[in-house]
Amino acid sequence: MWNPVNAMNKALMLVLTFYALNACAQEQSAAQTSLDLVQKQVFTTRDFQTFNGQQIAEVKVGWEAYGELNAAKDNVNLITHFFSGNSHAAGKYTDADALPGYWDAIIGPGKTIDTNRFYVISSDTLVNQEPHNPMVTTTGPASINPATGKPYALDFPVVTIRDFVNVQKALLDSLGVQKLHAVVGASMGSLQALDWATAYPDYVERVISVIGMGAADPWTIAGLQQWANPIIADPNWNNGNYYDGEAPSTGLRQALGMVTLQAMHPLIFNQAYAASGPREAAPLQDIRANFVVVEQLNAAAQARTTYADANHVLYLVRANQLFMAGFADNLSNGLSAVTAKVLFLPATNDLLLQPYMAKAAHNTLLSLGKESYYEEIEGPWGHLDGVYSVGQKSEVIAGFLD
Amino acid sequence: MWNPVNAMNKALMLVLTFYALNACAQEQSAAQTSLDLVQKQVFTTRDFQTFNGQQIAEVKVGWEAYGELNAAKDNVNLITHFFSGNSHAAGKYTDADALPGYWDAIIGPGKTIDTNRFYVISSDTLVNQEPHNPMVTTTGPASINPATGKPYALDFPVVTIRDFVNVQKALLDSLGVQKLHAVVGASMGSLQALDWATAYPDYVERVISVIGMGAADPWTIAGLQQWANPIIADPNWNNGNYYDGEAPSTGLRQALGMVTLQAMHPLIFNQAYAASGPREAAPLQDIRANFVVVEQLNAAAQARTTYADANHVLYLVRANQLFMAGFADNLSNGLSAVTAKVLFLPATNDLLLQPYMAKAAHNTLLSLGKESYYEEIEGPWGHLDGVYSVGQKSEVIAGFLD
Repeated sequence: MWNPVNAMNKALMLVLTFYALNACAQEQSAAQTSLDLVQKQVFTTRDFQTFNGQQIAEVKVGWEAYGELNAAKDNVNLITHFFSGNSHAAGKYTDADALPGYWDAIIGPGKTIDTNRFYVISSDTLVNQEPHNPMVTTTGPASINPATGKPYALDFPVVTIRDFVNVQKALLDSLGVQKLHAVVGASMGSLQALDWATAYPDYVERVISVIGMGAADPWTIAGLQQWANPIIADPNWNNGNYYDGEAPSTGLRQALGMVTLQAMHPLIFNQAYAASGPREAAPLQDIRANFVVVEQLNAAAQARTTYADANHVLYLVRANQLFMAGFADNLSNGLSAVTAKVLFLPATNDLLLQPYMAKAAHNTLLSLGKESYYEEIEGPWGHLDGVYSVGQKSEVIAGFLD
Repeated sequence: MWNPVNAMNKALMLVLTFYALNACAQEQSAAQTSLDLVQKQVFTTRDFQTFNGQQIAEVKVGWEAYGELNAAKDNVNLITHFFSGNSHAAGKYTDADALPGYWDAIIGPGKTIDTNRFYVISSDTLVNQEPHNPMVTTTGPASINPATGKPYALDFPVVTIRDFVNVQKALLDSLGVQKLHAVVGASMGSLQALDWATAYPDYVERVISVIGMGAADPWTIAGLQQWANPIIADPNWNNGNYYDGEAPSTGLRQALGMVTLQAMHPLIFNQAYAASGPREAAPLQDIRANFVVVEQLNAAAQARTTYADANHVLYLVRANQLFMAGFADNLSNGLSAVTAKVLFLPATNDLLLQPYMAKAAHNTLLSLGKESYYEEIEGPWGHLDGVYSVGQKSEVIAGFLD
């Protein structure tokens, strides 16, 4: 049966794919070849001490890498992932994969972050949004608590961006890496990248913060809370104890619908959802009927719930709300230890983490006498320009990495 | 007992009041005197035909007026209210009132909209957000359906901005008014103002659209839906049938919390909620603990639920989603009948109805050869600059009304 919502979503996917491929195409050069097929690996560490003073008996995270680690182990670029993302930053797992990792446009042989030169490594964070994704390994409230044999639920400690960094540090330690050429991340990944330079200043030579911030402000804390609210309000959430029963899927869908919407900008959104509008007949006649755009957004959000866990979303929200690079009493003190040079690449049309946030962190570094650079990514995507339009800054990034 | 949240909200109220009074102060001139105390009146009309072809047996709305209707009845300015507002646009009901109506800065004797010259009238809309406010009279899903003796709930017909206009038209007809010097409204009020000029072009001489739009786009439809979602997801909502039981107060609070947040801009929000930040101790230790800003926003939203009805919010959301001035197949055709001259005053920092929307309507009018003007209100408030900073455009408004 022909389903208008499916048909529209297919049309939308075409638009999105067009833009993504277009962004990729800008990056193509004659010198490029493809990455070899990528393999996901798993790193385990035990008795992990959290920033808030608690302990996690066993932490497992997935990771993948592109290129070769050199003998001196000093050619490493670490890629840190965004809120809804995972360690799949580039390449494909199989030739049949529809799309490569999210930053394939700039990571690969002969590309901006050149895997002929660099060993590029990326890991899943703690409390990753998608613990049920077969290609993700993470530890969080959906993981089994060895003390009880049941999922932690809300007994899992609150974790911070610093904890994400410390898990990555343990992974790199296990590989014998003692220096990072650069840490590069978008959105929540940018938080990890900047915090790396405060936590391990001797370790980090360069930071690239794409669509990022130096610290959450009240606006951002309140805005992120909107993503938590529908989960907490869902009766199936049951104070986090739903692993034996029905999951809070309505709350999770509403949360991920907001993430989907707010990561975009009207410029692209109105183009992608142009089939919908205020003169639709059904919503005029029936208060229960939805606009096509609402059905489409619901379907997109529903699809995003497949591998997601509601408690993990709550913990991710919290980790972002708690963020101040350096975790000192203010941002200036937090950044005072930084020795890395830093490049900020916010997106002009970003409505989620507006450029003023990256600007504030940049200006704080400059006021401390640090080396910091700032350029804005232009584009119609809003926050997602940090993913889809990053190729626009290839030369700046390549120059910064040189 | 000292309550930090109450204390903070008091501090916030002080900041907000300071800005509001400051905006008022900009408007003071030696020639001004105060409005006489204002009286709320009630208008009733029967067998009201809705735009979608249904009928409402009895419609009652509150209204108030400032100044005197002249003998020719041609000195009338109609003020149309915003989503969370009502007909209280200026003056006080009693000397003890803490604050006057929302646009008191520009409405009154000797002020921009000079009640020594104009008869200024304002009415509550259908499905007003606050049917339980003793100073509001409205008809909507919380009203008693005379056919059943029970609240309409979702049996109330979907109503549109055109229906709001038609109720106002019936009210003005009852007063013998046959010409409007101007229709002036902010946000949802601007939708009514512009639609007036398409529905009754011979009737309307001037339109002032403050923080407005010409038509809802997919972005706005999807954004408004976020306000409906927590209500629909609240189990107490019960498909709209909660008048005999417990109201969906959690959903309503979450909805009005979003309205509160999204009507502002980080510039003012971070100043008003500066007591909160990412380094708070409780949220770091306990996933169930809230940031101070979240508690404050919840308390503010809770206060806004006092007189509100959840179904009314759903119907208001729908009325805004369905809006296209003129209700034709496209905006250009909808605006083609306009003979009024139009002034658009969007706010530069508005994140809710961004200036591109007013600009599009303005450009459409120009392309049709109509008389249209466009200026932006600057300020830190975002969408609320249309309320708190409108005094900035006093001269432009006064000139336009002359």
